[in-house]
Amino acid sequence: MKKLYELLDGFYEEMVEIRRHLHQYPELSFEEVETPKFIAAFHEKLGHDVRTNVGGRGVVATLRGEKPGPTVALRADFDALPIQEENEAAYRSKVDGVMHACGHDGHTATLLGVAKALNKLKSELEGSVVFIHQHAEELPPGGAIAMIEDGCLDGVDVIFGTHLWATAPLGEIGYKVGPFMAAADRFDIKIQGYGGHASQPERTKDSIVVGSQLVTSLQQIVSRRVSPLDSAVVSVCSFEAKNPFNIIADSAVLAGTVRTFKEDTRDFIEEEIERIIKGTCLTANVSYDYTFLKGYPATVNHKEETEFIAKTAENVPDVQSVKEYEPRMGAEDFAYYLQHVKGTFFMTGAKIAGRETYPHHHAKFDFDEKALLIAAKVLGTAVLSYMEEN
Amino acid sequence: MKKLYELLDGFYEEMVEIRRHLHQYPELSFEEVETPKFIAAFHEKLGHDVRTNVGGRGVVATLRGEKPGPTVALRADFDALPIQEENEAAYRSKVDGVMHACGHDGHTATLLGVAKALNKLKSELEGSVVFIHQHAEELPPGGAIAMIEDGCLDGVDVIFGTHLWATAPLGEIGYKVGPFMAAADRFDIKIQGYGGHASQPERTKDSIVVGSQLVTSLQQIVSRRVSPLDSAVVSVCSFEAKNPFNIIADSAVLAGTVRTFKEDTRDFIEEEIERIIKGTCLTANVSYDYTFLKGYPATVNHKEETEFIAKTAENVPDVQSVKEYEPRMGAEDFAYYLQHVKGTFFMTGAKIAGRETYPHHHAKFDFDEKALLIAAKVLGTAVLSYMEEN
Amino acid sequence: MKKLYELLDGFYEEMVEIRRHLHQYPELSFEEVETPKFIAAFHEKLGHDVRTNVGGRGVVATLRGEKPGPTVALRADFDALPIQEENEAAYRSKVDGVMHACGHDGHTATLLGVAKALNKLKSELEGSVVFIHQHAEELPPGGAIAMIEDGCLDGVDVIFGTHLWATAPLGEIGYKVGPFMAAADRFDIKIQGYGGHASQPERTKDSIVVGSQLVTSLQQIVSRRVSPLDSAVVSVCSFEAKNPFNIIADSAVLAGTVRTFKEDTRDFIEEEIERIIKGTCLTANVSYDYTFLKGYPATVNHKEETEFIAKTAENVPDVQSVKEYEPRMGAEDFAYYLQHVKGTFFMTGAKIAGRETYPHHHAKFDFDEKALLIAAKVLGTAVLSYMEEN
Amino acid sequence: MKKLYELLDGFYEEMVEIRRHLHQYPELSFEEVETPKFIAAFHEKLGHDVRTNVGGRGVVATLRGEKPGPTVALRADFDALPIQEENEAAYRSKVDGVMHACGHDGHTATLLGVAKALNKLKSELEGSVVFIHQHAEELPPGGAIAMIEDGCLDGVDVIFGTHLWATAPLGEIGYKVGPFMAAADRFDIKIQGYGGHASQPERTKDSIVVGSQLVTSLQQIVSRRVSPLDSAVVSVCSFEAKNPFNIIADSAVLAGTVRTFKEDTRDFIEEEIERIIKGTCLTANVSYDYTFLKGYPATVNHKEETEFIAKTAENVPDVQSVKEYEPRMGAEDFAYYLQHVKGTFFMTGAKIAGRETYPHHHAKFDFDEKALLIAAKVLGTAVLSYMEEN
Repeated sequence: MKKLYELLDGFYEEMVEIRRHLHQYPELSFEEVETPKFIAAFHEKLGHDVRTNVGGRGVVATLRGEKPGPTVALRADFDALPIQEENEAAYRSKVDGVMHACGHDGHTATLLGVAKALNKLKSELEGSVVFIHQHAEELPPGGAIAMIEDGCLDGVDVIFGTHLWATAPLGEIGYKVGPFMAAADRFDIKIQGYGGHASQPERTKDSIVVGSQLVTSLQQIVSRRVSPLDSAVVSVCSFEAKNPFNIIADSAVLAGTVRTFKEDTRDFIEEEIERIIKGTCLTANVSYDYTFLKGYPATVNHKEETEFIAKTAENVPDVQSVKEYEPRMGAEDFAYYLQHVKGTFFMTGAKIAGRETYPHHHAKFDFDEKALLIAAKVLGTAVLSYMEEN
Repeated sequence: MKKLYELLDGFYEEMVEIRRHLHQYPELSFEEVETPKFIAAFHEKLGHDVRTNVGGRGVVATLRGEKPGPTVALRADFDALPIQEENEAAYRSKVDGVMHACGHDGHTATLLGVAKALNKLKSELEGSVVFIHQHAEELPPGGAIAMIEDGCLDGVDVIFGTHLWATAPLGEIGYKVGPFMAAADRFDIKIQGYGGHASQPERTKDSIVVGSQLVTSLQQIVSRRVSPLDSAVVSVCSFEAKNPFNIIADSAVLAGTVRTFKEDTRDFIEEEIERIIKGTCLTANVSYDYTFLKGYPATVNHKEETEFIAKTAENVPDVQSVKEYEPRMGAEDFAYYLQHVKGTFFMTGAKIAGRETYPHHHAKFDFDEKALLIAAKVLGTAVLSYMEEN
Repeated sequence: MKKLYELLDGFYEEMVEIRRHLHQYPELSFEEVETPKFIAAFHEKLGHDVRTNVGGRGVVATLRGEKPGPTVALRADFDALPIQEENEAAYRSKVDGVMHACGHDGHTATLLGVAKALNKLKSELEGSVVFIHQHAEELPPGGAIAMIEDGCLDGVDVIFGTHLWATAPLGEIGYKVGPFMAAADRFDIKIQGYGGHASQPERTKDSIVVGSQLVTSLQQIVSRRVSPLDSAVVSVCSFEAKNPFNIIADSAVLAGTVRTFKEDTRDFIEEEIERIIKGTCLTANVSYDYTFLKGYPATVNHKEETEFIAKTAENVPDVQSVKEYEPRMGAEDFAYYLQHVKGTFFMTGAKIAGRETYPHHHAKFDFDEKALLIAAKVLGTAVLSYMEEN
Repeated sequence: MKKLYELLDGFYEEMVEIRRHLHQYPELSFEEVETPKFIAAFHEKLGHDVRTNVGGRGVVATLRGEKPGPTVALRADFDALPIQEENEAAYRSKVDGVMHACGHDGHTATLLGVAKALNKLKSELEGSVVFIHQHAEELPPGGAIAMIEDGCLDGVDVIFGTHLWATAPLGEIGYKVGPFMAAADRFDIKIQGYGGHASQPERTKDSIVVGSQLVTSLQQIVSRRVSPLDSAVVSVCSFEAKNPFNIIADSAVLAGTVRTFKEDTRDFIEEEIERIIKGTCLTANVSYDYTFLKGYPATVNHKEETEFIAKTAENVPDVQSVKEYEPRMGAEDFAYYLQHVKGTFFMTGAKIAGRETYPHHHAKFDFDEKALLIAAKVLGTAVLSYMEEN
């Protein structure tokens, strides 16, 4: 490992440069063009097998070690967000309204650093490494599902991925066996009442009253129908029924999201929402439209691989603490990879000390670039240790 | 009329005696035995045609004038209430838990006074008078409907009735063309959920939550679905779901009442309640029982006869003011008579000056007995004037 | 009267012409320029005393009869609505997005016809007639209040006004003693919660849930707190909380209207709305803004003058039926005149036979122009009869 | 250990006898008289130090090993429930309306078996064993808190306890690090409105409507205000507002329970309930009483001791599986011991194969008596292993 760490330490400045370059030229989900070109070129220069346009815009590079052994996949996502950056750094986004506000620039830089280091260890490498550079993580249906269909996991024995986490202290690695990130779904409801003049409610079917009753009743799903030991969220986030002050609403349009960790809870909530809509609309003799759009499923880390990463991380220099994390209600399409092969997804602390911390997706989001090196060391160690043990 | 008034003035003390006698021996609705006997005996002594057990326990007496003319009916009810009297008067109820707390004792005394006076004027009387002494006004289905089926209105051209009203000033007569007293119906709802331990709501169907949602939604009937120009009340008066503090309610039992003035509003509300129950139960996948028991319909006074009473009353000595009243949400089975013959129901003020006023059905209810004389004069005048004019 | 009717019959075609001219050149409330000029010129030509810019843009013309007597005011409003006309008539609106969709063009034509006819009867006229041409009826605070402050009722003994009513049959006159048109007020509510990510509701204060609870609770004002015998409406007509599907609403903006007939009910509801907002916001620890903007008060017709108009209308040729109307929940700033002088506001049926009827304020609204003549005859007769009787 | 197991196998029949004896003579919480006498006599016969009336009705017996070492406490509860047994077994309860329907008879028999076996191993015993026989576990405030105050944990280094679990398979041991059983609290709410006749809601303050609104709003605590990752239950279990069908409820009485695992969540919910009551009552201008009675806190198992038990159990003959359990929303006053000394509480499967399983507190509750032996072996092993390791 010592050699690996020396190599990575040596590449640190290049990783920072890569990150800053990508940060200046962010590309939106499903619209990435230059980023995958950049990545492919990097791997080609290293002599890796490179496939582009995988599942659309993904890049998959393979490094074959000179000794036999398992195939380990590492994944980094590379898309950006429709946010106008408000940071003042020299490397701030040069694209209006688009920003790497979730750290995917860092994920990519990390993975390229790991690729370069492992490439140097090729002769001793007991197996292959597949670098999965994924597009479109931020926007369901996401890039993972298409890349998997396009074969990015073929022959892969195990997969590891990490997220730089700007609100966790630098030097901290967070892991969690089992459900770690939630499934995130979207629902849309239209209540079709019957409008009319506010002075004659008896000639109307008041969509706002029905919608309000509905919002109130939907609270019961989490409070009464899902086990208190099972985490779930049902949030109605949008309620539109804009009208003149004296015209009763003809219709009301609601939208919201559901978060769950278990597939059966997820399906149950999809049904319960409809049950409540149906009943509530029946009370007022109005009709409705309801669509439930499934987003990413829950990210469920495999036990053995997660314990492996935790143990691995403990021995990595620069890692100060390895902690079991609580699950998170946010979603991540890394979930799909774990439905096909064993593996785990973990967090790499990246908080900037001595500065106010802005959350992911904030216009002032940033992270401590030292985290690139730490993440690279954990991933690189994981590859080597895994090959050694298997 | 002068003669009539002299006669009534002369009988005033007897009317008071009768009222106090009846007050001491009140009988519950559908359990009246001595009261109808007493009434029948009184009329028999006057030589009137008397039918007893009319429609159950009613008494109908007929006085035939010696001259030809129309048949005028006067109605008084004679049942008491299941209330323990709290007055200290010498004539207070001698029957535990039963009380004339609505003035029906006074109605009967008034009518007997009128009967005696008109009897003395028999030779000049141009028509007949039918004295309808009705049992069971306080308890639906009431006595009126059965007495009508048993023929009490046969041959009757017009009917008048009054209620002594303890909260209106003595000397005041209140009338109203059209709907005067409301229809009063009863509904009963049982929500059948599925009970269980409070720590596992997801294994139950919480009847209290469903019942609460239901009560909330039922408010919309009056607020949104009935015209603001149409008066209606939907009151949930009872909500029973008594349980240990840690057992989720298996069922909830609700009861309440509906008040309306129009038959189509009444039917509409009966249906809307069920619509809301059905929808609300559907939201929670629970079942229900619903019964809607129609009580008395609205008392709808006929225009011409009401204006006749108003005009008549203005000329009666002791009457100080004749006022058009607002409708009342209370109910009265006089309503049924008005569905068969023309007529009107009016109020006779009976407030006791200089004493706190207790409402009807209160354990301290009482009225000014002078109102007996005033009511008798208005009814007697109505008979004579009507015969004269028709 | 015969002379009056002959004159009006002779002016009918001119009244139609005037109406059609105004219809083609509608002007919005508080933006009227040509319409008052046109009206003033008409009266000046007749030799009436004319004041322009009364209370802003109103016109008041006075015709002094040659004999002494009372001063009778007639009022017509002349503003149009921000509606794009969809009729195909030759005289359809030439102004984009502006339309006489409530018949005020007809009101003005009628009043000018009456003015011309009464002018011809000047020598026999026992009193004065004040023609009040009011701007801005459609938009609170309306023109009436300012015209009154500017003296338009000075010296006036009685006032009459009518509304052409396109959904009532031609030949029908509708009257109502007491409250006829409702008070119409506006309320605006902003709920200020605390937004955040939908997956972490515990870090937010969900404005949509609070707003929904509020809408539900506001139903209780009419269903529980206002007497069923008193008409009132509380309608929440607008609910705006548009958000991405995964962001909990930071705030919600509601608006609606209140309709009442009694001033104390109106004030009571203003307070109850705030009580419910305050309590509901307290349950969720959120803040709010609440404004209650009083619109027109209830239009309360005086008894004697209303009965006078009913009686008058019965004798007018072309009037086929005179009916007592139910009150209406719509509002009218004629209400203000009746707070200062005696008078009444009535309806003149104007339905077009054999065509689908569109309600007032509809883009296809129209009326039978014969109603101009009928309204003119009723108003003219009212002036002459009133002078005769007083 | 072999010796221990042989001894326990030999005592099995006696343990069953003890259990059946206790089962026939159950005693209610805080009313135990014969049970503690029986227990004390048993220990006295073994020569243990015995204290009675500890914290009221508890019994504490101490066995001092002949070698030095730590002090290990084992706890069993011995009270019964106010339930009428419906089983037909020969050993069924002889006390009307009282039943060991939760297995405490078995807990006591187990502990006496362990005491007898360890007593035989006294000479080799490296430390002391404190047998805590606790009264009144079923009824808060419970016996534990008073026994602790009365010194039952003095000198104790570690404590173990188990619950026979009739719905888990025989041979299974269930453990859980951290929060295992929930805190269980009770709340009582009285809403004081203002009653009156159902036909005049405007003169009342309808307590049922307020109570219903309250129940609905309370759902938001779990659905919106507690983190989805933190388990909590708020159940309204009782809603009493029984009235005649035509009398609006003067008051409504609600009761329910709260379940939580964290003290700050518990306190937060206590406050949020009051916030919602206060706001809801303000919307309707009614008053309220609110009491929140804290029951047992959460039972939070210590990590090291729990892992110790899991490891220990794996090596016990007759134990077929050792599983990590989910937390449970039920409560247990073993919680208090764990606030003072290290230790853990675990489950011992006791399901009767081939018979319908009835849950704890059911009138037909029973368990497989083989579980007595298994529980005794795990507890006994724990004592010896702990002494060996510490």
